Amino acid sequence: MSQTHDNSVYYSEYLQLNKVLEAQFPESDKAGIEAHDEMLFIITHQAFELWFKQIMFELDSVISILSKESVKEHEISLCVHRLHRMESILRMSMEQFTILETMSALDFMDFRDLLHPASGFQSVQFRVLEMRLGLPQEKRMNRAFLTAMKDFDKNLVHQAEGKATLFEAVQSWLEHTPFLETEDYLFWQEYKSAVSDTFAKDRADIANHEILTDEERVIRVQSIDQAESSFNSLFDEGTYKELMEKGERRLSHKATLAALFIQLYRDYPLLDHPNALLQAICGFDETLSVWRYRHASMTMRMIGSRIGTGGSSGFHYLAHTALKQRVFGDITSLSGMLIPRRITPSLPNTISERLKFTFENE
Amino acid sequence: MSQTHDNSVYYSEYLQLNKVLEAQFPESDKAGIEAHDEMLFIITHQAFELWFKQIMFELDSVISILSKESVKEHEISLCVHRLHRMESILRMSMEQFTILETMSALDFMDFRDLLHPASGFQSVQFRVLEMRLGLPQEKRMNRAFLTAMKDFDKNLVHQAEGKATLFEAVQSWLEHTPFLETEDYLFWQEYKSAVSDTFAKDRADIANHEILTDEERVIRVQSIDQAESSFNSLFDEGTYKELMEKGERRLSHKATLAALFIQLYRDYPLLDHPNALLQAICGFDETLSVWRYRHASMTMRMIGSRIGTGGSSGFHYLAHTALKQRVFGDITSLSGMLIPRRITPSLPNTISERLKFTFENE
Amino acid sequence: MSQTHDNSVYYSEYLQLNKVLEAQFPESDKAGIEAHDEMLFIITHQAFELWFKQIMFELDSVISILSKESVKEHEISLCVHRLHRMESILRMSMEQFTILETMSALDFMDFRDLLHPASGFQSVQFRVLEMRLGLPQEKRMNRAFLTAMKDFDKNLVHQAEGKATLFEAVQSWLEHTPFLETEDYLFWQEYKSAVSDTFAKDRADIANHEILTDEERVIRVQSIDQAESSFNSLFDEGTYKELMEKGERRLSHKATLAALFIQLYRDYPLLDHPNALLQAICGFDETLSVWRYRHASMTMRMIGSRIGTGGSSGFHYLAHTALKQRVFGDITSLSGMLIPRRITPSLPNTISERLKFTFENE
Amino acid sequence: MSQTHDNSVYYSEYLQLNKVLEAQFPESDKAGIEAHDEMLFIITHQAFELWFKQIMFELDSVISILSKESVKEHEISLCVHRLHRMESILRMSMEQFTILETMSALDFMDFRDLLHPASGFQSVQFRVLEMRLGLPQEKRMNRAFLTAMKDFDKNLVHQAEGKATLFEAVQSWLEHTPFLETEDYLFWQEYKSAVSDTFAKDRADIANHEILTDEERVIRVQSIDQAESSFNSLFDEGTYKELMEKGERRLSHKATLAALFIQLYRDYPLLDHPNALLQAICGFDETLSVWRYRHASMTMRMIGSRIGTGGSSGFHYLAHTALKQRVFGDITSLSGMLIPRRITPSLPNTISERLKFTFENE
Repeated sequence: MSQTHDNSVYYSEYLQLNKVLEAQFPESDKAGIEAHDEMLFIITHQAFELWFKQIMFELDSVISILSKESVKEHEISLCVHRLHRMESILRMSMEQFTILETMSALDFMDFRDLLHPASGFQSVQFRVLEMRLGLPQEKRMNRAFLTAMKDFDKNLVHQAEGKATLFEAVQSWLEHTPFLETEDYLFWQEYKSAVSDTFAKDRADIANHEILTDEERVIRVQSIDQAESSFNSLFDEGTYKELMEKGERRLSHKATLAALFIQLYRDYPLLDHPNALLQAICGFDETLSVWRYRHASMTMRMIGSRIGTGGSSGFHYLAHTALKQRVFGDITSLSGMLIPRRITPSLPNTISERLKFTFENE
Repeated sequence: MSQTHDNSVYYSEYLQLNKVLEAQFPESDKAGIEAHDEMLFIITHQAFELWFKQIMFELDSVISILSKESVKEHEISLCVHRLHRMESILRMSMEQFTILETMSALDFMDFRDLLHPASGFQSVQFRVLEMRLGLPQEKRMNRAFLTAMKDFDKNLVHQAEGKATLFEAVQSWLEHTPFLETEDYLFWQEYKSAVSDTFAKDRADIANHEILTDEERVIRVQSIDQAESSFNSLFDEGTYKELMEKGERRLSHKATLAALFIQLYRDYPLLDHPNALLQAICGFDETLSVWRYRHASMTMRMIGSRIGTGGSSGFHYLAHTALKQRVFGDITSLSGMLIPRRITPSLPNTISERLKFTFENE
Repeated sequence: MSQTHDNSVYYSEYLQLNKVLEAQFPESDKAGIEAHDEMLFIITHQAFELWFKQIMFELDSVISILSKESVKEHEISLCVHRLHRMESILRMSMEQFTILETMSALDFMDFRDLLHPASGFQSVQFRVLEMRLGLPQEKRMNRAFLTAMKDFDKNLVHQAEGKATLFEAVQSWLEHTPFLETEDYLFWQEYKSAVSDTFAKDRADIANHEILTDEERVIRVQSIDQAESSFNSLFDEGTYKELMEKGERRLSHKATLAALFIQLYRDYPLLDHPNALLQAICGFDETLSVWRYRHASMTMRMIGSRIGTGGSSGFHYLAHTALKQRVFGDITSLSGMLIPRRITPSLPNTISERLKFTFENE
Repeated sequence: MSQTHDNSVYYSEYLQLNKVLEAQFPESDKAGIEAHDEMLFIITHQAFELWFKQIMFELDSVISILSKESVKEHEISLCVHRLHRMESILRMSMEQFTILETMSALDFMDFRDLLHPASGFQSVQFRVLEMRLGLPQEKRMNRAFLTAMKDFDKNLVHQAEGKATLFEAVQSWLEHTPFLETEDYLFWQEYKSAVSDTFAKDRADIANHEILTDEERVIRVQSIDQAESSFNSLFDEGTYKELMEKGERRLSHKATLAALFIQLYRDYPLLDHPNALLQAICGFDETLSVWRYRHASMTMRMIGSRIGTGGSSGFHYLAHTALKQRVFGDITSLSGMLIPRRITPSLPNTISERLKFTFENE
């Protein structure tokens, strides 16, 4: 443990502080203009970039693990841990917007025109992050942004294009989930039947309900019909395919059913980590969406608008983006397809035994 | 300082903990259903309500002060302080969403149907907060929500309807700003002229720029024309009125110019607090918008969707709401109407002297 | 899922807002004194109390589970989840100090003497929390505090005294850890031998190190001796007992060795949750310690000191308390007893097989 | 505003990302050892260093301003703003500890010995920060740390030694506060008299209090005597000097009285910013103290202890340091020397008029 090697490590050299702390060159200094807050602008953006590097580093390892033919239980636990870390970083980094906002719009004005045309947040790392998460091209960066990039940055983007995405890795891992189907058990059929029972019970309740008027009865039954048809689109491969073609679903049917199975039976030891993994992925996706919205708000605060009330077109563009750029919306939206644990069908013994520990079955 | 009064104060009685800590009655307990996380659900919502009460308490005092005929300098400082406090509370309360999200959608399912039809966030205090901020009726709560309220809650809403709003109070306070116009000084004229000079210089630069093609020149000049026409809509009362009629502006012309003046000359002692007040108002407005978006995300996580990819209609409704429900967007968007301090016209001495302290002019 | 029961739930009744929002009665109001910030003082303390109720609720369930004769794997996962939630609440609640500090000492002065003698943080729930965590009596509340309590609060404390503590529950659960000892395997002996090897290697390195002076050699060897003797105190039951008698250890020898075993072999599926449980317990303990220190800082800010530089005796009392009142310091300090994974001895196959899933062994 | 200069700024070059993002070289990579979390370790420390650079940049500007012979009102406002920013950065940076703690002690073990002897937090910037704040040498870094530094780092420390500190600048600025003494007004005498009246009233209350026993009367009177003598030490120059010699006070008598005056009369416009400055300084000092304690906790978590229960000597050293290393404790502790606003003596008109705006006196 104690070491006697000669090349002892020296703190500021190890951290390469001669690079990191000597990388701040305000344009206002060059132009001989007083703009105290440009230092804050530079350092905040550098801190974002540092943390994005860390997020990319973790994401890379998660994709590698989940892309493997066979993922060990311990490795899933590792992925969960790293996704949580990624989310913590994202969450903390939002505080950096609050710090940047201690610079007012007028203070930004002092050097904003010196940054032309770079005044926005043009992070290549962030674009690559979006790609590696699996954000589809049509929802991604505008072509203009790509054109403006210098070659070394374009290269980074092109390299990323060939690589596996988290979306693909998760989908493939989900599709490998065992236990949804055995010789005498079909998960989705059991589930469909339980769901169908609850709807039947709801319909009977309405029919027997004394206070309701006929009109109210019709409305309630329609709402139940609608809900049931949503569920059925999940169970029927054909309907599901149509939804995919219309662009309303993106995750494969098989992977979607597996995600549902894992959530419903997560109390079994073997599904504990897989369930945590789904939660962690949705958590990161959600936090990234809030991050985008928070970024849009800051932009609005800083550069305002010369157009209408309630915000610049820039703000609206960024904010809408926050809405649309969910990568794992298909998993998050499954929350609407759950039923209470107390009416969830039990697993057959042949399966439930295999979901426990050797130790527990001894 | 030390006291000898007989009615000494006792901690848990002072805080009325017998009420506060005995107000948690899970529906699952009544129904004899196991749903551990309902306690968290209740307490989180109660904590939100407690903090909304505090925000309302501060807001009330800010509106009272700013509605006065003559607001003292010290009182503006008080308002800034209280608006910052309101924003801090809002920001902290967002962490409560993160805590509530430690309950998964499946855990929520265990008691969600027991809460019918109350399962959402139906806070009357929050509706009243929106009203008192000055959110216009058409952007506010849906009628359905109002109909479903019990009488004691409806009363709270109706009482709030008659009261002054922060928007009105701020607008009136801005309109009372002195110094924008004296016998021989018109703020907006000076500013218009400075702005116009910079556009003229920009046009000349383009004309003399050797590398640009003719086509590029046309595009750049068009963009300058557009920017200048935005500025001019601010200076021309008629055009501004049209924007108001179209619903693109809501803050009065006079108040808008005052908000611009205050920001531009905020380095004078007398305008320091007024500028801080504008920043604090926009800060609260922005944080409330992020709060709404964060709330929408949590809802999506909890109840998912039975419809399409990327989120429920509920989520989209809430999230769009976050975009549209800015109350002070007209002030925030002024960031786009600033010019760098170094080319901002100086104030005439007769005004600048009056913006200092007695002490400084001695 | 949709419900047709007649007793529909109404938001503000469900949350009992008539109690929660009508529990704020400033003493300054009664005394006819203007003290705007007393409302903040009341609401902040009520919010703390609400959240402490939630923390107690979770703690209670964790203690119940861990006190059971046989704890299922899934239940350990539940405990981890709930401890994380407890820590998140504690972390978020620290932001509430920041909000309370928007009240200055002078503003507090406006009503501080009206609260006499209750001006401090005299939360019975917090005392009960300390007791249920297992903070030993001698490190707990001062007698004076107990004497001053009214009967209904004393009862709460007395009730808590008879109940199991988290410390006891964790210790007992740790003592039940299997696999540390089989017919032909003794964990601590294997580990002792691995540790001993590394120290031997370190000593050899020093002996062969050309640059070191004799004096330096002596110093380094002494430091190794000291480290080794620390390790040995862990392996030798007699020495460990002496440490316990001196009050330097509190956790039983058996439990301590189990905690070490779990950390070292946490990559095995069966030890994944137990390891997470230990981390979660230490995390909560650490955050509570930071919470205490943060609380002490706020107190110093609010009431200052009439004594010396650097803080009041009150601050020093509270701050030292933060240092001493770790409940699970014996587990946290085990970090100093780990060796790198690459030199940790492998487990015998007979054990390692049993630490995997049935599914993995198929 | 739009620009046509040829040297357009390119985002990743402006931020020098080729330096910042290519400064991460894990020792484990060099040693061919698998230690995934070393990247996190490096990037977290680099992010701390980046933010410390920003804090130093702001601190430098604050010291420069406050060291001037005559500080303008607007400049005080600037200092407040920058100190708030410094505190926000510090507060956000504490979240980085939470992120680093997602690395467990065992994961740290994987590369900890490779960092020898640099394994701690040996930031020269942090030492320089302490110096520039005005932490006295005897409370500062240990000599051992200084000896181990390389020349370029030693130089940074030596350069800092010659520079003005925030403590000196604030003290000098406070000593220049006007208005504490005019021909016919002595602040401290008026205040002493008001304080003395309240103590006299307290003594009378006790004498007339029917329920108290004689013994209780004696105790209460003693406590009043003690409080009064604390106040008197503030008013009597001789006693104050003794406290300074004993090391119980560090801030000069004149500056201390000025700090008291500013807080008591902060509702006058001219004292609003000076009061905010004092609050901001104490706020930063307090947050730094919490930061140190948080850092100590993390260290304890990561490296544990081979010694006793409740933490390593390293932890105790760092944690005690957090207690003692307050720079502005003399100002914070003044909170104990305030009396309620309603019994604070009024200022004479000759002074109060001068504390308002020209505009208000018109």
